Amino acid sequence: MLSNDTRQAILAFRAERDWAQFHTVRTLASALVVEAAELLEIVQWTADDGLASRVAERRAEVEAEVADVAILLAYLVNDLGLDLDAVVRAKLARNAAKYPVEQARGTSRKYTELGPTGAGRDDR
Amino acid sequence: MLSNDTRQAILAFRAERDWAQFHTVRTLASALVVEAAELLEIVQWTADDGLASRVAERRAEVEAEVADVAILLAYLVNDLGLDLDAVVRAKLARNAAKYPVEQARGTSRKYTELGPTGAGRDDR
Amino acid sequence: MLSNDTRQAILAFRAERDWAQFHTVRTLASALVVEAAELLEIVQWTADDGLASRVAERRAEVEAEVADVAILLAYLVNDLGLDLDAVVRAKLARNAAKYPVEQARGTSRKYTELGPTGAGRDDR
Amino acid sequence: MLSNDTRQAILAFRAERDWAQFHTVRTLASALVVEAAELLEIVQWTADDGLASRVAERRAEVEAEVADVAILLAYLVNDLGLDLDAVVRAKLARNAAKYPVEQARGTSRKYTELGPTGAGRDDR
Repeated sequence: MLSNDTRQAILAFRAERDWAQFHTVRTLASALVVEAAELLEIVQWTADDGLASRVAERRAEVEAEVADVAILLAYLVNDLGLDLDAVVRAKLARNAAKYPVEQARGTSRKYTELGPTGAGRDDR
Repeated sequence: MLSNDTRQAILAFRAERDWAQFHTVRTLASALVVEAAELLEIVQWTADDGLASRVAERRAEVEAEVADVAILLAYLVNDLGLDLDAVVRAKLARNAAKYPVEQARGTSRKYTELGPTGAGRDDR
Repeated sequence: MLSNDTRQAILAFRAERDWAQFHTVRTLASALVVEAAELLEIVQWTADDGLASRVAERRAEVEAEVADVAILLAYLVNDLGLDLDAVVRAKLARNAAKYPVEQARGTSRKYTELGPTGAGRDDR
Repeated sequence: MLSNDTRQAILAFRAERDWAQFHTVRTLASALVVEAAELLEIVQWTADDGLASRVAERRAEVEAEVADVAILLAYLVNDLGLDLDAVVRAKLARNAAKYPVEQARGTSRKYTELGPTGAGRDDR
């Protein structure tokens, strides 16, 4: 999702400013919520049928907020010493067990709401 | 940050369940806030000097929430047709202009609060 | 919105547990985001035409999350020494200036996007 | 927490602009997360020992964000037809059962982490 060069540029940006001293799991998680909320803010009042034009109209801000989320995620992954591929694949495996294709297909029900007759558009 | 294989696995997981129909910039941004908040929830009451042991104690949940954030980011990047390396590098370039090393070094002040005497621990 | 008796009960709950030591504007704002996200989580995947039944189905959780938000707001208002009526009325006055009825009526555009021809369904 | 007059002013502000059509539990919960995140953003990088001066320095923004949270909460309570005193008291009663004074006193551990030896500064 990000090249090694970009990851190195993200870490160099922080090192040059000596900002790692302000970064903890708490402050990075907090900043991640704030940036994700800024992305949501762009479309929070937009009707679904207006999303495409809204995003096109605000493309630059959308890209900037997605970039901020990616940058904070890169700091978290680095500081936690995570193998992101490994943790994502482990999570997908757990999600696959919680959301078997035959039950989860075409429904947004949460796994706790999926039964033998779990289909039907609802909340995941 | 994620290999192409993992990115493909994330997209295949969604395709198998026909869940793309529920994914828009709005629902993905909303889910991103929710998952980032779940990560924050793990450490929200933890004192800074207790963070290391807290994260070690809750390592599995921390990894699962970071994975959820990465998975949602992968859907956003895919659905928006973003070149994430390009948007991150463009954002770093703008941030570098807002936070010149000589002024931003060692301070967490926000760029709007950085002056010729901008140093001092504060809010970014 | 809350009676004095309920406000006192909220403060007594905290005092009995000696929890004020853990409450700062930062931790309370963080907890407020987490609880608001838990409310959003209940309906994040629900289509608009399914919201009424979803909320009816999850009424207890919805009420519990709204209560958590109100409790945290009560701590913030108390600890900041705010006159909430006064700050809300001051904010409504500023919002009224940003969103004149004749321009804002029936549109969800943000004030920065309201022009002489500001109408049209969009983002606030 | 809010007088009836202020609650009426909040509802009148919306009615004059015909904005109720944009308000659902989903959009109001989403806006609540966004406003709470804007409050958190003010102090997210501030060290605990700098919070008092930070809040004093940014008092106007802090008050404006708290007001936004209160306004959105008022819309949610109205639209859901909630008796906020009743739901808050019911939540306090459940919290009191989860956090018995003798076990919860002076600790920020989550109730799921409270044992006979549950004391010690940690995460709620």
